[in-house]
Amino acid sequence: MQLITVGTVAFDRIETPFGVAEKTVGGAATYISLAASVFLDKMGLVSVVGDDFPEATMDQLRQRGVDLQGLEVLQGKESFFWAGRYHYDMNTRDTLETRLNVLLDLDPTLPEDYRTAPYVMLGNLDPTVQAKVLDQMTERPALVVMDTMNFWMDSAMEKLREVIGRVDILTINDAEARQLSGEHSLVKAAGKILTMGPKYLVIKKGEHGALLFSKDRVFFAPALPLEDVVDPTGAGDTFAGGFIGFLARTQDHSFDNLKRAIIVGSALASFCCEKFGIERMLEVSREDIDQRIQEFVDLVDFDIELVG
Amino acid sequence: MQLITVGTVAFDRIETPFGVAEKTVGGAATYISLAASVFLDKMGLVSVVGDDFPEATMDQLRQRGVDLQGLEVLQGKESFFWAGRYHYDMNTRDTLETRLNVLLDLDPTLPEDYRTAPYVMLGNLDPTVQAKVLDQMTERPALVVMDTMNFWMDSAMEKLREVIGRVDILTINDAEARQLSGEHSLVKAAGKILTMGPKYLVIKKGEHGALLFSKDRVFFAPALPLEDVVDPTGAGDTFAGGFIGFLARTQDHSFDNLKRAIIVGSALASFCCEKFGIERMLEVSREDIDQRIQEFVDLVDFDIELVG
Repeated sequence: MQLITVGTVAFDRIETPFGVAEKTVGGAATYISLAASVFLDKMGLVSVVGDDFPEATMDQLRQRGVDLQGLEVLQGKESFFWAGRYHYDMNTRDTLETRLNVLLDLDPTLPEDYRTAPYVMLGNLDPTVQAKVLDQMTERPALVVMDTMNFWMDSAMEKLREVIGRVDILTINDAEARQLSGEHSLVKAAGKILTMGPKYLVIKKGEHGALLFSKDRVFFAPALPLEDVVDPTGAGDTFAGGFIGFLARTQDHSFDNLKRAIIVGSALASFCCEKFGIERMLEVSREDIDQRIQEFVDLVDFDIELVG
Repeated sequence: MQLITVGTVAFDRIETPFGVAEKTVGGAATYISLAASVFLDKMGLVSVVGDDFPEATMDQLRQRGVDLQGLEVLQGKESFFWAGRYHYDMNTRDTLETRLNVLLDLDPTLPEDYRTAPYVMLGNLDPTVQAKVLDQMTERPALVVMDTMNFWMDSAMEKLREVIGRVDILTINDAEARQLSGEHSLVKAAGKILTMGPKYLVIKKGEHGALLFSKDRVFFAPALPLEDVVDPTGAGDTFAGGFIGFLARTQDHSFDNLKRAIIVGSALASFCCEKFGIERMLEVSREDIDQRIQEFVDLVDFDIELVG
């Protein structure tokens, strides 16, 4: 395996001011794996679903190189279900319903050939489960990227901090960076978080782009201004999947290559928003991606002489 | 005159979660002129103050090349006063008090040598006053930049639209772009606004940067992540002043040069936030500015091969 991903595989019900998707396939691990599959052809997925999860989606994942040995299917049970409603700004949302269902039983045992994967993506999930995945790796992976959210900061901070201490790169949003660090300034927040273990911090700001911090450098990537944002669900996971997929493909963890990975992740995330659920990610081509990366290049490109 | 600016010259009372400035000099035209003075040495300022306005500030403006023939001083009256309180995010604020005072009497008559200025900055103000300034120009200026806000969209849309139809570049924030166009997508909003008259639109997003739109191009400049934001008041005006000041200095209105002007404006705005009121703008040096522009270059710089 080039990469293993742990995270949810789920059904979502999504309401936006502009439309509704009643029951669409979602989940962090689904989005991450689909995005990473742009760069990789041998990935493992660690999660659990009920027997209601569509075989067709599993086939689509397999066709893209996602091995599903690590996806437990529990008979007679239902898959994780999340329902949310986006505000008019499409950048904030309320959770309307969460049915954990099979997620309560997620206690992953990694297949043997997952345990030596050099790249590990810990999708947003109970940090206890994230830790169990790391515990089962036979040696320290080359790179571990972790995503999490405020829910775990509120409910399981101690365990969360323990896992954060074991990863190379943490991805969270700006409010979460402030909460985790107790600092308002994102620069100060990043400084504090980088003393907790990770070598790099990615702060995701949705439609306002993403920041990459190392101890002494910072990089900013905008989000692409889109004609229409249909559904932002999964954009953060798609970003993370593109990010780690690109790193696993290039095997270069320098700051300069991380910047490229951020741009690639941002490009993939911009596609994700164009249709409900995973629909757009299933149809996007290499040419589409190249064209979009070029749009990012053009969007921020300038040349300037200093004024002094 | 190289540039004339119309706008408020005022006192502000500013509360942030981190401090208070009881009575500090502010006003759109003050910030714009100070920022533009980095690039220009002969500017006119059109506004009105009471006899309470400090002579020391007027001297500081004059020392920077700001001619004050256009600044009427009304004896026995008080200057415009605004009080506001910033929220914890430092990106949104409530107005606590507005005392228009002398602003009610602002009916500008331009000094003769202002009427041929090639660059005109219409700072945020009653569009009727903005129009009066344009009416008094002896010929069409080379470039007119206009700033406005939602207040005028709510209260004087017809007059506002008339003035927007007469300018080259409009600067507003993202919520105002949505309000003015009736479009949620900023790409669509920009498309609509560019049919109203202006050739270019700048959408200011505060700590989230700024977008520049022409009919067929878009450019994004981030805001610099700062260790400490002390007071964002005047950052938008400082941005506009740096923007038009740079354009008036270079006399190049191409999209590529507008991009540079956006970066320069963003750099100056980042200084403005570091202290209360105009304090930081009075002390910033050419070297400081060059160093900060270099930080912008580094912040967004990346090189990437396409993946296809």
